[in-house]
Amino acid sequence: MGSALAYHLAYSAEQADFAAVSDQNPQVAQALAERFGVAEVCPDYHDLLAQDDIDAVVIVTPTNAHVEVVKAAAAAGKHIFVEKPLALTLQDCDAAIEAVRQAGVKMQVGFMRRFDPAYTAAKEKIDQGVIGQSVMFRSNSRDPWRTSVEYARRESSGGLIADMGIHDFDLARWLMGSEVSRVYSEGGCLVFLELAEVGDIDNAVISLQFENSAVGTVDVSRNAIYGYDIRTEIIGSEGSLMIGGLQHTPLLVMHKNAITHDAIPGFMQRFETAYAAEIRAFVEMIASGGEPAVTGEDARAATAISIAATRSLDEGRPVMLEEILS
Amino acid sequence: MGSALAYHLAYSAEQADFAAVSDQNPQVAQALAERFGVAEVCPDYHDLLAQDDIDAVVIVTPTNAHVEVVKAAAAAGKHIFVEKPLALTLQDCDAAIEAVRQAGVKMQVGFMRRFDPAYTAAKEKIDQGVIGQSVMFRSNSRDPWRTSVEYARRESSGGLIADMGIHDFDLARWLMGSEVSRVYSEGGCLVFLELAEVGDIDNAVISLQFENSAVGTVDVSRNAIYGYDIRTEIIGSEGSLMIGGLQHTPLLVMHKNAITHDAIPGFMQRFETAYAAEIRAFVEMIASGGEPAVTGEDARAATAISIAATRSLDEGRPVMLEEILS
Amino acid sequence: MGSALAYHLAYSAEQADFAAVSDQNPQVAQALAERFGVAEVCPDYHDLLAQDDIDAVVIVTPTNAHVEVVKAAAAAGKHIFVEKPLALTLQDCDAAIEAVRQAGVKMQVGFMRRFDPAYTAAKEKIDQGVIGQSVMFRSNSRDPWRTSVEYARRESSGGLIADMGIHDFDLARWLMGSEVSRVYSEGGCLVFLELAEVGDIDNAVISLQFENSAVGTVDVSRNAIYGYDIRTEIIGSEGSLMIGGLQHTPLLVMHKNAITHDAIPGFMQRFETAYAAEIRAFVEMIASGGEPAVTGEDARAATAISIAATRSLDEGRPVMLEEILS
Amino acid sequence: MGSALAYHLAYSAEQADFAAVSDQNPQVAQALAERFGVAEVCPDYHDLLAQDDIDAVVIVTPTNAHVEVVKAAAAAGKHIFVEKPLALTLQDCDAAIEAVRQAGVKMQVGFMRRFDPAYTAAKEKIDQGVIGQSVMFRSNSRDPWRTSVEYARRESSGGLIADMGIHDFDLARWLMGSEVSRVYSEGGCLVFLELAEVGDIDNAVISLQFENSAVGTVDVSRNAIYGYDIRTEIIGSEGSLMIGGLQHTPLLVMHKNAITHDAIPGFMQRFETAYAAEIRAFVEMIASGGEPAVTGEDARAATAISIAATRSLDEGRPVMLEEILS
Repeated sequence: MGSALAYHLAYSAEQADFAAVSDQNPQVAQALAERFGVAEVCPDYHDLLAQDDIDAVVIVTPTNAHVEVVKAAAAAGKHIFVEKPLALTLQDCDAAIEAVRQAGVKMQVGFMRRFDPAYTAAKEKIDQGVIGQSVMFRSNSRDPWRTSVEYARRESSGGLIADMGIHDFDLARWLMGSEVSRVYSEGGCLVFLELAEVGDIDNAVISLQFENSAVGTVDVSRNAIYGYDIRTEIIGSEGSLMIGGLQHTPLLVMHKNAITHDAIPGFMQRFETAYAAEIRAFVEMIASGGEPAVTGEDARAATAISIAATRSLDEGRPVMLEEILS
Repeated sequence: MGSALAYHLAYSAEQADFAAVSDQNPQVAQALAERFGVAEVCPDYHDLLAQDDIDAVVIVTPTNAHVEVVKAAAAAGKHIFVEKPLALTLQDCDAAIEAVRQAGVKMQVGFMRRFDPAYTAAKEKIDQGVIGQSVMFRSNSRDPWRTSVEYARRESSGGLIADMGIHDFDLARWLMGSEVSRVYSEGGCLVFLELAEVGDIDNAVISLQFENSAVGTVDVSRNAIYGYDIRTEIIGSEGSLMIGGLQHTPLLVMHKNAITHDAIPGFMQRFETAYAAEIRAFVEMIASGGEPAVTGEDARAATAISIAATRSLDEGRPVMLEEILS
Repeated sequence: MGSALAYHLAYSAEQADFAAVSDQNPQVAQALAERFGVAEVCPDYHDLLAQDDIDAVVIVTPTNAHVEVVKAAAAAGKHIFVEKPLALTLQDCDAAIEAVRQAGVKMQVGFMRRFDPAYTAAKEKIDQGVIGQSVMFRSNSRDPWRTSVEYARRESSGGLIADMGIHDFDLARWLMGSEVSRVYSEGGCLVFLELAEVGDIDNAVISLQFENSAVGTVDVSRNAIYGYDIRTEIIGSEGSLMIGGLQHTPLLVMHKNAITHDAIPGFMQRFETAYAAEIRAFVEMIASGGEPAVTGEDARAATAISIAATRSLDEGRPVMLEEILS
Repeated sequence: MGSALAYHLAYSAEQADFAAVSDQNPQVAQALAERFGVAEVCPDYHDLLAQDDIDAVVIVTPTNAHVEVVKAAAAAGKHIFVEKPLALTLQDCDAAIEAVRQAGVKMQVGFMRRFDPAYTAAKEKIDQGVIGQSVMFRSNSRDPWRTSVEYARRESSGGLIADMGIHDFDLARWLMGSEVSRVYSEGGCLVFLELAEVGDIDNAVISLQFENSAVGTVDVSRNAIYGYDIRTEIIGSEGSLMIGGLQHTPLLVMHKNAITHDAIPGFMQRFETAYAAEIRAFVEMIASGGEPAVTGEDARAATAISIAATRSLDEGRPVMLEEILS
C-alpha cells in the first residue's frame, strides 16, 4: 500500500516534491527511494519529521501505529495523509484529531472510494437532486481471498466488520447525507474455519438505520471466490444509483451456451484511479490552503459504526450509535 | 392475477381441461369464460366444487378468503392451487394444511419464482455443488410504484414486509437449504407518507440468520421508480450465483455520453414464464400423482418469517423464529 | 414453424377463430387440430380454400410451394399470411403479388423481426428523430448450428446469404428508410465443409450501399457455436441504436475470475413474442380493414437484395440492385 | 500524443532513463522536460541523435515526417519507436524499413491495441485454440467527433479509411493469423459535409477476404456521437471472442424506465494501459535484445490494406492486395 501511494505521489501529484522515504526496514525504504528518484531515506521517521523543508507526510503503517505517528507528525507541523482506518478505538481517533487540531495542520484520511470516478459521479448526482431523497443504502465489500489469520485478529484489523465494512460505513454517511443511528449485525465463520480460532468471522450482513429514518444494509465476505466485488446502490424517491460492476477486462469468451468474462482481481485494479486522485487531492488541498475532503471526524464516525456493528454481532442485539459515542 | 393464471391454464397446461370459472362478479367470470372458451360459469364457487367431474381448482381470491375456499375445496376432494400467501397467520396456514391433509388432496402454493428459469437454474447449480456450500443470501424485491393504501394495511396484505418480502423468504429457505432461525428488520415510511396513516412503511431491510449459521439480507422497496427489480445473490464457498437483471427490451439508445436501456416494467413481464410453468407443474403433478413442488408447509414457513420480521420491525429487536413457531 | 404460428393464432390472436388445419401429412394436421381445439382437418388445402366461411389463411410450406398456395388462396379470396421468404426469385414474388392484387386480398409476409419489441422500439425512435439521420447500418444473423445439407442447397433455401441474410436485408430497408442500391459479398465455406459439396458456404459478410448514400454491413454465420446471435446497430448523425443482446437467462455463475452466463438458444426463444405479434397484427389488420405491415413488395425487395448479394459472391464484384430489378 | 507517450516513458518504463526531449516548438519541449524531470532539451532533433549515450528514441511527429526522422535515427544507430501509421505510402514504409535494416537497429510501430489487456487476452486465447479456427473478423473504430478538416485530407491522414481503419487492419492480420488478400469499401460523407470539400468521408464499411479464405468486415465512423467505440469480434469454428465495451464509469443512473450509463470518452481513456504497455515493451525489448512486437513490416502490411481499401472506395470495385503490393 505504501508503495502504491508512493507511486501516485511521485507520478500523479505534480505539485508535490517527493522528498524523503522512511521505513523501519531500510531496504524497503531504499528500494522505494531508488524507484521514485527520491534523494533521502530515513530509517527513523522522527528524522524525517525534524526537517523543516518537509511540508506534509503520507502515513502508511500498521493501524496500531497510526496515532503515534500522526501525533508526532502533527507536533512537527506537518500536514498528514493517513491510511484508513485512522484507529480502531474512538479514544485513538480522538487523540489523533486533537493532535492535529492543536498543531493547526490538515489531516486527510484514506477513504479512497470517495475519489473513485463512479462514486464521485454518484455523489454529484445525489447532490444535484437527480434521485430525489435518498431512502435506502445497499453496499457490499467482498474479497476474493481471506486475509492472513494474524491480520484477522480483532487487535490487528478490528475483525471482519471493521476491516471490510469501514469503507461501506464511510460511503453510507457520505452518500446518504445522514449519520447512522443504529446497527444490527449477523455474521458467521462459515468457510475459513481457521479464522474462528482467532475470533474472526468471514461473512456478515449489517443493517443500518440512519438519523433521517433511511435504512441500509451492508454485506461483507472474505470468500467472493470470483473476484473483488464492490457495489453500492442508493434508492431514492425519484430514481436510484448503482455503482460498481463485476467485469475487469472487456473480453467475452463465448462457447456453447456459455459466455464468460473475468472479474476484478483486487482493490489495486479497482481503485487505482482513486488512489491517485486522493493523493492528488491531498497535495492540492495543502497547496491551495483548503480543507481535507475526508477528515479525522469522518474517520472517527466510520470507526464508531464499525465498533457498534461489531458489538451488535458479539451481543446479538441492535446497537444504538449513541451508546458508542457517549 | 386470476386472469393471468386462467390464461396459462388454458394455453400452457395441455393436460388440463379448463372446465369452469367462478367469480363473485358474474361479469368477470363470464368474460373469462368467453375469452378462454370455458363452458361453465358459477357465481357461487360451492356449485363448482359440487361437481364430481372437476378434479382440481386454482384459487385466486383476496388472501383473507384463502383458508375458507381451501377448506371447502379440500372437503370437496379437489386438488388445490392457491395463490401466495396462503394466509397471514400461522393458525390459518395450519387450518388449510390440516384440511388438505385430512382430505388427502394435493395443494400447491403460488411461489412462482421457484419456476422462473433463472431461479430454477440457480437451484440446480446449487444442488449440483457448483458453488460449494451456500453461506450468504442477498435478495431484493422492489416495486416501481406503491400499492393502494387500502391494500397496504396489515389486515389486507400483511404490510410491506409480508407483502413483498415473502417471496424472498421463500427463496431464502429454498435456495439456502436451511431454515431461517432469526430475523431483524429496519424500515421506514420515507416516500409515500400516506402509507404511514394505515400503519405501513415503504422501505425495509431484513437481516436473516439461518439454522446452519449462514447469513442473509433482504431489502424491499415500494419506490424503485426505475422499474420492477428482483435480484438474488447466493455467495458460496466455491463460487457465487447472481439471479436477475434490470433490462427488459434489448435496445440501447445512445446519445452523447449517455447509453440508456429500459427496465422491467412489472411482475407480469418478469415472471410470465414462471406463472405458466407453475400452473403446468400443478397440472402435471396431479396427472402423474406426484407431490407439489411448493407445499402448504413451505407457505407456512415463509409466513412465519414474515411475521417474525414484522414483529422485529415493530419491537426493534431481533426475533427468533422459534418464538413465532412455538 | 407451422406449429408455432398455429399456437399464436390459437392463443394470441383473440379476434381470430381458428377454423381448420391442412397438411399433406394427415397425422400432423390431426395433431395440430387436437392440440388447438380446431374442428376441421383438410388433407388437401384446396378443400380448405373452398370454404366460404374462411376469411384468411396462414401459409407455412417449403418456400418453393409458397407461390402456388398463395395464388390458390388469393383466387379463393382469402387474405394471406405467408412465411418468409415469399419466394426465391423475383418472377415468383411478382406472380404472388399480382395474384393478390388481382384478387383484392391482403397479404402479409412473415418478417417477424419487425414485430419484436426491441426492433419496434428502434423503428419508433428513428421515426421520432431520436438519432437524427441514419447513416450506417450494421447487422448480423448467426446460427449456433448448421442447417441440413439438403436445405442448404440454393434451390431449397437460396443458400446462406438468402437464407439468413434476408431478415437483415428487410431490416436494412425498414430501419434505414432507404432502398439498397449496391451490394458486395465475401464468403466462404470454412467450418462445415460438407456444405461446399452442395454449393453453399457457412460465413459471409455483405456490404450495402443505400440509395440515400448511407452504408451498411451484414454478417451471417452458421457457426456461432455459443448461441443464436441477432444484433443490429444504426449509427445516426445525432445518436445510435443497438438492438439485441447475448444473454438468455438472467443468471450469472461466478467462479474464480470467470463470470458466465448463457446465450440465446434459438430463434423461437429470441422471437417468440414477435411471432405472436405478427399473427395478431395480421388478424387485426384483416378485422380492421387496414393494410399489411409487411407487404409482398417488401418481400420482393428483400429477395432482390439476397439475389444481388449472392450474385456478388458468385462473380466477385459489386452488384447494383438495378441490375437485378430491371 | 507525444506528451502521453512521454508520460508513460517517464513513469511506466522503469528500465528507461528519459534523457532528452526534442520539439520544433522549444516551449513544448521545455514544458515536457520540466514535467518529467528531463535534463536536456534539443530544438533540433539531429542534436539529440548525435549524442552517443542515447540508445533509443520515441518518434511522435506528423506522419509525413516519420520517414525522415526514422532514417536519421537509424543512421545514428538509435533504436526506434514510431507512432502509427509508419507512412502513408509503401515506398515510404520501405524506405524506413530499409534504413532500419541497414543500421541494424530495432523499430517498433505504435499499434497500441496489441498491448491492450483485452486484445492481448484475445490473442492468447486464439493461440491456445480456445475458439478453434478463426473464420470471421468483425471490427469497428468509431470516434465521437470529427477530426479537423485539415487533418482529414488524404495527404495529411490518408483520409478516413487509412486514419481510422488502420488499427482494425492491423488487428485483422494479427488476430486472424492470415494476410488480407482482397478488400472492398463502401463509404460516404453523410454527416460532416465540410469533409467532402477536402475529399474525405465520415462513414465507411470495408469487407475483407483473407488468404486462408476467412472473411471480415470493418466499419469506421466519425459520428459515434455517444462515445469512443472500439469493438472486435472473432468468430471461430469452436467458439467466439468479443472484445470491447461501451461503458466507461461503472455507474448506472436509474429513472422511470430509463437506466443510463456513460460511454468511453476517447482513445486516451480506452487505451491508456495499452500506451503504457507498448512503451514498456519497447524498452524491455531493447534491454533484453529481443525483437519488436510490432515491426515495420507489420506497419507496411496495414498501410497496404488501407491503400487498397481507399482505392476500392475510389474505384467502386474490389481490390486485390497483390495489386497494391506488386
